[in-house]
Amino acid sequence: MGLVVQKYGGTSVGSPERICGVADRIVRTRRSGHDLVVVVSAMGDSTDDLVDLARRVSSEDHPREMDMLLTAGERISMALVSMAVNDRGQQAVSFTGSQSGIVTDTSHTRAKILEIRADRIREELAKGRIVIVAGFQGVSKEREVTTLGRGGSDTTAVALAAALQATACEIYTDVDGVYTADPRVVPEARKLADLSYDEMLEMASLGAKVLHNRSVELARRYGVPLHVLSSFHGNEGTRIRKGVTMEQVVIRGIAHDPDVAKIALLGVPDRPGVASEIFQAVGGRGVNVRMIVQASAEGGKNDVTFAVGTHDVKIVLPVVEAARATLGARAFLYDPDVAILSVVGEGLATSAGTAGTVFRVLAEADVNIELISTSSITITCMVRQSDVERAVRALHQALQLEQGP
Amino acid sequence: MGLVVQKYGGTSVGSPERICGVADRIVRTRRSGHDLVVVVSAMGDSTDDLVDLARRVSSEDHPREMDMLLTAGERISMALVSMAVNDRGQQAVSFTGSQSGIVTDTSHTRAKILEIRADRIREELAKGRIVIVAGFQGVSKEREVTTLGRGGSDTTAVALAAALQATACEIYTDVDGVYTADPRVVPEARKLADLSYDEMLEMASLGAKVLHNRSVELARRYGVPLHVLSSFHGNEGTRIRKGVTMEQVVIRGIAHDPDVAKIALLGVPDRPGVASEIFQAVGGRGVNVRMIVQASAEGGKNDVTFAVGTHDVKIVLPVVEAARATLGARAFLYDPDVAILSVVGEGLATSAGTAGTVFRVLAEADVNIELISTSSITITCMVRQSDVERAVRALHQALQLEQGP
Repeated sequence: MGLVVQKYGGTSVGSPERICGVADRIVRTRRSGHDLVVVVSAMGDSTDDLVDLARRVSSEDHPREMDMLLTAGERISMALVSMAVNDRGQQAVSFTGSQSGIVTDTSHTRAKILEIRADRIREELAKGRIVIVAGFQGVSKEREVTTLGRGGSDTTAVALAAALQATACEIYTDVDGVYTADPRVVPEARKLADLSYDEMLEMASLGAKVLHNRSVELARRYGVPLHVLSSFHGNEGTRIRKGVTMEQVVIRGIAHDPDVAKIALLGVPDRPGVASEIFQAVGGRGVNVRMIVQASAEGGKNDVTFAVGTHDVKIVLPVVEAARATLGARAFLYDPDVAILSVVGEGLATSAGTAGTVFRVLAEADVNIELISTSSITITCMVRQSDVERAVRALHQALQLEQGP
Repeated sequence: MGLVVQKYGGTSVGSPERICGVADRIVRTRRSGHDLVVVVSAMGDSTDDLVDLARRVSSEDHPREMDMLLTAGERISMALVSMAVNDRGQQAVSFTGSQSGIVTDTSHTRAKILEIRADRIREELAKGRIVIVAGFQGVSKEREVTTLGRGGSDTTAVALAAALQATACEIYTDVDGVYTADPRVVPEARKLADLSYDEMLEMASLGAKVLHNRSVELARRYGVPLHVLSSFHGNEGTRIRKGVTMEQVVIRGIAHDPDVAKIALLGVPDRPGVASEIFQAVGGRGVNVRMIVQASAEGGKNDVTFAVGTHDVKIVLPVVEAARATLGARAFLYDPDVAILSVVGEGLATSAGTAGTVFRVLAEADVNIELISTSSITITCMVRQSDVERAVRALHQALQLEQGP
């Protein structure tokens, strides 16, 4: 029956009762004949609680100690899950990131996985045991405890699935799959049965907060089939795998993110390397830039506009001001009242008509488009924050996404 | 100036504010020129909270997973203490039991330390860093996480002090030393400036809950000088070291413990090995037997009476009933309403008068003595629980313990 990797997020293990529910599910999977590695996050808000504690004792950043602190969270949840599984008559053993052989670099709080030395996991699997692994954490070659940063537990699960050549990697979360749009905004949004890695990347990067991009990228690289499921319902969920749509234009969904800010550097000299200077400076601080548009202007000057997540603004603004001075740009503009939305679907690149449809629908809905950028599978627009939900609803209806393929 | 090992208990690191106070003290010690290894317990009641969580997910014992769970507690406090020390301009680094090289056997939840491989600690000390070590935990040769059981953090501190040949091992706690009697019972009780290891063992085993016996035994074996201090006051505390009283009878204090139960096996056949059978069975469950008295009776039958801590009763009773059946004893008696008190002082063995004084004082105070047992440094009596505080006060006054030597 092969090996299955399951990952349970913080909400799924958020209370003793939920941990028991997770244990029931694990035992069912095992009894159906699968070998099983289970990756768990810290319980509920416990990571935030630990961060708060750190802030109360220290005003500075101590990345090494922060990693030591935060890794306590998964240690607690994995031990509890393992106990609950053992209670149900299946042998389970919990392993820290270090015991699982998740070897990382030493970039504390945002370490990258270098390799997986899964010998101990394999030994336990060979004994018929279920292995419960702490997500989000690893160990450096210098034997220092590290954490993987945002989306770390998903990344742990996918990396283990790749290393152990699992037949499936199931991500249990508090939603039951990926939808054609955010169901809180578009009530008739439809759950997608499957999605390509690239489509998922676009959906995830724009606020469909189901899977972190980093884990999807890793899954794509190693061809790990992902399955997003609810830990509370028995629904089918969404499968993420290689593109399957061939040449047909299929619009899969509309992702949107209201928590972004627009930053525009105005009057940037038009010389090579300018964009690289700006975005290397921003990217070097670990900030994910969402949308970059450079409009050529007259007189050898350009405007460079981009979007960042609201939570990154505090980091980005000083970097942007420094870049403005270095580059000799005239000024910069900061606008927090924007949002981005993206129509996602493989095949969009070869479809002349879809972009026109998108723009027409938005115009009819009286939504002003401030920026446009496209890729082979996306048409992304920046609009006013107050317009974005209306825009998503209008597009969802016009593109008839509530109807299945 | 040499190396100092400091240990801070759960109350001392019970809140962010207290952690900052501990960090202040650590930095002061470092600035006075000492190298410093700091052992910390889990914050306040956090270990109890983790045990509660385990009970809510599991009704069975899972010692390995319990160790994994509980070790999260010290991981949190050590990271926070390290952050706070770093904030104050001194370099600190936190180490788990495993990183500290505390190698134990695999008896989960009550592991014994086999050896200390303190290379990493020495390396960090050589770099001028303060090393913050998680108390209570270790790692087995099979790379499994273990905990040391009750008194574990004190034991960690003493073991490290021995391995690193520290000039002092300072135990910071929520009381400011060892008193001639429990100050809540005897208001005029006097803090002792010093005490021998043996005296401390007797005081500790009878409820002077300052230091766990196991750590005192370890300190005695390796000659580690202990210093018990309050983490909240600047008082002098109590020093524990080799006996210094020569041949003079010095009564150091009166320890008492109301949380004990009496168990008596009645009509035990008088043949060799009987006592060993009973107490091996009880001791094998990790239960500490406080007082053993065997009264020879007529007709080849004995009564064997002993005391155990109230918290051990649930474990002990089934063992006792099994032993009763095996030995062919007539019955056993269980009495929870008793207490024990002990007059402690080196030199008591050679003093004929003291025992008589003790019994006379108790008689005058109308306290009935149910059992008596003595050692070279103790006279121990079992009395009614309702009498014990009156008995302690009467003895303290009669022996003039409020006056210094």
